[in-house]
Amino acid sequence: MAPQDIAEGVLAGDRRAVARAISMVEDGSAELPELSSLIYSSTGRAYTVGLTGAPGAGKSSLTQQLIKAARSRDLTVGVIAIDPTSPFTGGALLGDRLRMQTHATDPGVFIRSMATRGHLGGLALAVPEAIRILDASGRDLVVVETVGVGQIEVDVAKSADTTLVVVNPGWGDSIQVAKAGILEIADVFIVNKADREGADRAVRDLETMIGLGSSDAWAPPVVVTSATKEEGTDAMWDAIHAHRAYLDEDDRLILKRGARLLSEVEDMVSQTLKGRAAAMLEEAPDLVSDLRELRTDPYAAAAAIVARVAGS
Amino acid sequence: MAPQDIAEGVLAGDRRAVARAISMVEDGSAELPELSSLIYSSTGRAYTVGLTGAPGAGKSSLTQQLIKAARSRDLTVGVIAIDPTSPFTGGALLGDRLRMQTHATDPGVFIRSMATRGHLGGLALAVPEAIRILDASGRDLVVVETVGVGQIEVDVAKSADTTLVVVNPGWGDSIQVAKAGILEIADVFIVNKADREGADRAVRDLETMIGLGSSDAWAPPVVVTSATKEEGTDAMWDAIHAHRAYLDEDDRLILKRGARLLSEVEDMVSQTLKGRAAAMLEEAPDLVSDLRELRTDPYAAAAAIVARVAGS
Repeated sequence: MAPQDIAEGVLAGDRRAVARAISMVEDGSAELPELSSLIYSSTGRAYTVGLTGAPGAGKSSLTQQLIKAARSRDLTVGVIAIDPTSPFTGGALLGDRLRMQTHATDPGVFIRSMATRGHLGGLALAVPEAIRILDASGRDLVVVETVGVGQIEVDVAKSADTTLVVVNPGWGDSIQVAKAGILEIADVFIVNKADREGADRAVRDLETMIGLGSSDAWAPPVVVTSATKEEGTDAMWDAIHAHRAYLDEDDRLILKRGARLLSEVEDMVSQTLKGRAAAMLEEAPDLVSDLRELRTDPYAAAAAIVARVAGS
Repeated sequence: MAPQDIAEGVLAGDRRAVARAISMVEDGSAELPELSSLIYSSTGRAYTVGLTGAPGAGKSSLTQQLIKAARSRDLTVGVIAIDPTSPFTGGALLGDRLRMQTHATDPGVFIRSMATRGHLGGLALAVPEAIRILDASGRDLVVVETVGVGQIEVDVAKSADTTLVVVNPGWGDSIQVAKAGILEIADVFIVNKADREGADRAVRDLETMIGLGSSDAWAPPVVVTSATKEEGTDAMWDAIHAHRAYLDEDDRLILKRGARLLSEVEDMVSQTLKGRAAAMLEEAPDLVSDLRELRTDPYAAAAAIVARVAGS
């Protein structure tokens, strides 16, 4: 299937075309730039919500609740569930596959697990492109669910308009939460599994940390949910909308999305130049052996390569 | 203090000079290349152990045990405890500060919390340089402790000769562990808090996953510890040594370290070129507005910038 045909299908909202386009992103297809240029002018309409937190925090159940909330308001939804690339799992995990079946009969919902098998820029570049595909296909809401509490989550959260960070009661004390380095990316905090002991404590800890850290006009609200009991869904939905209303003031959303595009272009450029640098390094056997045998240091070696790339 | 003086101090094992040099790394000092060139020929002697795992898994206690084990064998130790940069914590965390005092009177131990305040390359570039500083200062063993289970940990683990991944009983089932994406980086697994229920199950799950995933000659052993009760320390030490012995065969350590240096130089080059690309982007107001107003897509914008950087 040619990129033109896939792009046409995506713009018409065809599920198979969308699935193929996202596979092209996963694989880092050489035809991705062409596909992107064909759909790009139809993007910017979907609202994107990121959902992140420690493994087991209940993100999948919360995503289900978000889907229900959106569907009851007659909004279409696209979900991207991120799988870290792993030789142990080989892509989409069983749990995600099962989950997909729940909404298989609802044409208003498109759920897709995504790994980065071949995309050189990794998830930081693959995710925004996958979001644009769902956006161009006419989804009103795109949810990006990530697994973990590390740098990938920080990168992926940059692709979202509103980022939800999910914690559990007893998941950890204040210092542990702060250590995970994901506090700063939260626009809304979700304390999920609220029926567990320690929920009040978790809310208090978070509110204290937000009070200490926030110099912004927006202070992240803390929402209490019990996703498996379907409690707190409306509060979560309202918090997302409050943040969206905040972004709609003073062109904040436009500026946020503009900054995001710039940062993405920078990453793409960096990736391309990195590839060229790697090729130069392979052609420089002396430099490599000098480095290994401690005759030149990494900074000096890097400076020499930069000079070659920029001069070529 | 001039880079020459700091380098002399580092090579003489002076603690204040080492601390200053690591601060230069944190800040991304412009004098870092000079410092690096002055100490680089004195590196490559220390053995580096990475310690990673989910927040609260007990990494700090295990580091204490490693320090004790090394000191009882008359080896000097340097520890780098990674703090994710965070406006909430502003650098070193209280816990790490307290921890540092425990060994404050032992000249054979140097412990340092490290954040990346100004280093453009982030931890992936800052950590190897900090390790080289401790290495050049004469430390026999360098331990790098990271907080979390994400991409930073994967990056940082690349800087270590032997990487320990710490899990707890009940931390999560097999799928949750696999989802965290850190299985692949483990040379040794530590099941810490062995007195908790589920320790046997955790060991079994890990051994099953290792059996599924490993095509390597090295199958990561699973060591059971209780760091607060100081149990399992010798087994952990022996596992590190077994891995070191494995690396010493067939030039594996030399090849691993060589590949590491190459990858670091590539990252540095990429970082420098990225900076140039960012400068080009700032000088290209039309490109930026075209991008924001959907007239050109990110791939096309990136290609234009690459052409400018490479042609300059």
